[in-house]
Amino acid sequence: MTSRDGYVWTEAEGLRAGVRSIGVIEPPSNLTDNTIIFDVIIVGAGYCGLTAARDATLSGLKVLLLEGRDRIGGRSWSTDIGRYPFEMGGTWVHWGQPHVWREISRYEMRDQIEISYDFSSGINQYLMVNAEGTQSMTHDEEDALMESGLQKFFNVDGKSGRDIMPFPHNASFNPEVLKYDKQTVAERLFEIRNFLTPNERVAIEAFVLLCSGGTLETTSFFELLHWWALSEYSYQGCIEYLVKYKFRFGQSSFSIRFFREAQETGNLSYVFNCPIVSVRNEENVVQVTARDGQTFEARRMISAMPLNVLNAVHFNPALSPGRKAAADIGHINQCIKVHAEIKDRHLRSWTGISYPHNRLIYGFGDGTTPAGNTHVVCFGAQHNHFEPEDDIQETIKALNGFVEMHIERIVFHNWSKDEFAKGAWFFPGPEFVTKHLEDLRLREGNIFFASSDWAVGWRSFIDGAIEEGTRAALAVKRDLQRIPKQL
Amino acid sequence: MTSRDGYVWTEAEGLRAGVRSIGVIEPPSNLTDNTIIFDVIIVGAGYCGLTAARDATLSGLKVLLLEGRDRIGGRSWSTDIGRYPFEMGGTWVHWGQPHVWREISRYEMRDQIEISYDFSSGINQYLMVNAEGTQSMTHDEEDALMESGLQKFFNVDGKSGRDIMPFPHNASFNPEVLKYDKQTVAERLFEIRNFLTPNERVAIEAFVLLCSGGTLETTSFFELLHWWALSEYSYQGCIEYLVKYKFRFGQSSFSIRFFREAQETGNLSYVFNCPIVSVRNEENVVQVTARDGQTFEARRMISAMPLNVLNAVHFNPALSPGRKAAADIGHINQCIKVHAEIKDRHLRSWTGISYPHNRLIYGFGDGTTPAGNTHVVCFGAQHNHFEPEDDIQETIKALNGFVEMHIERIVFHNWSKDEFAKGAWFFPGPEFVTKHLEDLRLREGNIFFASSDWAVGWRSFIDGAIEEGTRAALAVKRDLQRIPKQL
Repeated sequence: MTSRDGYVWTEAEGLRAGVRSIGVIEPPSNLTDNTIIFDVIIVGAGYCGLTAARDATLSGLKVLLLEGRDRIGGRSWSTDIGRYPFEMGGTWVHWGQPHVWREISRYEMRDQIEISYDFSSGINQYLMVNAEGTQSMTHDEEDALMESGLQKFFNVDGKSGRDIMPFPHNASFNPEVLKYDKQTVAERLFEIRNFLTPNERVAIEAFVLLCSGGTLETTSFFELLHWWALSEYSYQGCIEYLVKYKFRFGQSSFSIRFFREAQETGNLSYVFNCPIVSVRNEENVVQVTARDGQTFEARRMISAMPLNVLNAVHFNPALSPGRKAAADIGHINQCIKVHAEIKDRHLRSWTGISYPHNRLIYGFGDGTTPAGNTHVVCFGAQHNHFEPEDDIQETIKALNGFVEMHIERIVFHNWSKDEFAKGAWFFPGPEFVTKHLEDLRLREGNIFFASSDWAVGWRSFIDGAIEEGTRAALAVKRDLQRIPKQL
Repeated sequence: MTSRDGYVWTEAEGLRAGVRSIGVIEPPSNLTDNTIIFDVIIVGAGYCGLTAARDATLSGLKVLLLEGRDRIGGRSWSTDIGRYPFEMGGTWVHWGQPHVWREISRYEMRDQIEISYDFSSGINQYLMVNAEGTQSMTHDEEDALMESGLQKFFNVDGKSGRDIMPFPHNASFNPEVLKYDKQTVAERLFEIRNFLTPNERVAIEAFVLLCSGGTLETTSFFELLHWWALSEYSYQGCIEYLVKYKFRFGQSSFSIRFFREAQETGNLSYVFNCPIVSVRNEENVVQVTARDGQTFEARRMISAMPLNVLNAVHFNPALSPGRKAAADIGHINQCIKVHAEIKDRHLRSWTGISYPHNRLIYGFGDGTTPAGNTHVVCFGAQHNHFEPEDDIQETIKALNGFVEMHIERIVFHNWSKDEFAKGAWFFPGPEFVTKHLEDLRLREGNIFFASSDWAVGWRSFIDGAIEEGTRAALAVKRDLQRIPKQL
């Protein structure tokens, strides 16, 4: 099935919107009776909404899942281009991500995990490109450079961050750490400017922008410390946790398990292609109105919409001032992720940065396609932001800004222009977490708000989405257990 | 409520069998109709059986939970002595244990985690005792000694074990690693005998026996490599993952959540104090007979009994030869875990080993009791094994074999003498995993076998128990979905 989402470009066919994916749900609705009052309406079929839908249907609740798109997965979905999965959003998983790993284990998918990198063949090179030219290093030299730079960057306590944030799933276990939410990365870099080599500085900046998708001035240092703590306080850990292990058959092969299991309960109704415009949160019922005018009712609602689109829906009564303010500020991640299938087999082992002049900052070999071509994945950020579909020659130029590539195909999803995301994974500006996280986690009347964007642990990750979907489903179940059916 | 399990000794009251715990279930049964044919009978109410019972009841199956003891938790339970939890078995948890952490997060218990150690007060000392006397080190020196010794011990690949076992939740991702299952720890130590300092050798041996509860000659080096890989290939990681974070209100405050949630579904029947003696595994039904002659029937059964007691039950037809052989061999862990409440406040910061002459090998400060006393926990193994209840003066002597202690109370559970465990957490001898693990994971007719003892990831840990309970509940649900109710 072909989704409306995503773009593919080839020389022969030019740029086309819409990409095949096994995450497309066809037919898009199984709802026959519009007058049912559901136990819970879940808005959003990303991992958070899917987890909530699965858990709620398993526990016997009648669920209506509404999704604006034609597919599941939200900000994580994979293509099915010649059976090959290009990951359009969230990609990598790790057994140190508890919620995601519990599901991989439960669905017995641990044998379907493979490694993105392959340093066993081709030129094993790290290429650092800046305006003056290209430096070439071995991957061991790359690792040493990154480790030494990042250790300086994060070593605020003489213990690589371990003392200041010992317990990343309860990040303010040591409340002292919260002061770093006042600091931007630009400010932290200024603090340590005399201790970094020029290469370390460039490497850190590129790495930070890969994580935050923002700019150095808009990225909270606290949140990066949180990623660092989650990744075991080392660059080696960051590689292991953040960009190494992925699904052989793509993220959509994982997300579809949640959807199918919910379906099998017989308790799941769903409508795809159904963006919502307004929500009435009344005493005993929530009424949701879709863009096409349809209305749906339930005793409770789980909003699994991302932060950056929350204010696009009209809530009555209005959202709490704290939540509304948070959604107005939003998060800063405008990551651009571009895949290229290239003839250059020797680049399978390539990693590189091209910064600060290039429109794409970070890239590496991510796989080998069925045709035997190399698949590389490259990332840009708000720094030097662009829209890859607007001028494909600019995109090709940005790809060649790392190293010469012979491009067969380009594949991407523009998350910034996506009306159901308005950005990539959550990354906060300074003071956002300390000022707004708690507000975002609160219930309002019959509505429970769940999103990886305000998870406690692996916030921003698929893991955080599952954490939050799990939380919301249990909360709704408990809430409805307390009261008899009245409607 | 007071369990029959466990022992407490005080000078005033002497030795008493039976300890208070919030894990005791009262009344012990809610079964009113013995003729019900259940969807599934689950035998064993440890974390594995509890998880299976919770998940199966949540998915709508009618479950009968049978347990030989008067309490939940199996090999993990905590006392309620003056409201203080002494952990009688499995204790520590970590967010890197995915199944356990998913549950802690789901039950919103992450704020109930605290740290065993407290090096902020008293004498911050590591005491190494051997027959010749005592060496005193700082904890930094202890860490350096352990790290350097263990790195030599596990560095079989020049990468601290990362190359040979990169993916601990799929431990044979690199099949080369399986050769280490042929090797005992004694053999590995012989290999590196010329590279270890005398202190490193002693420290490693004590650490290994703390992990395996066996002897150097009976401990599989492969399994230790697995623990090491799970613990991020460092001694620092071992501390973090294995012995640092525990529940402020004890393990039983966690396990009771699973039980209560299963109860709330209305689908859970249970009988405690109900050891089983035989199982008939027929075409469409499983019949279970208890020691008191009662019989129970279900369409499926989940055996959540530990490896070492599997052959105490008579199965008809007989268990598969592979499973039976594995259960005949059993695992080697005869760990002795003894808690002492001591007046010596300065020992809160103590860690130590006393080896090889002492009957307890490893100990450290584990908490402060409500009376303001120090709580220390100490471990012995099959090496120099003893039964703490047999001669309490010998036990006191073993405790004082670390450092002089003024003992107010001793608390322990004798796992070796426990008829429902016959040992502590699973630890295999050489070749056990390669020869028997797959057999132990297979279904036989209507019976699904689940236990941390044959988990894939954190095998032997609470995490592995939850992994296995999760697997079994899903497998039974799927199996019963395929066929209509016939009975």
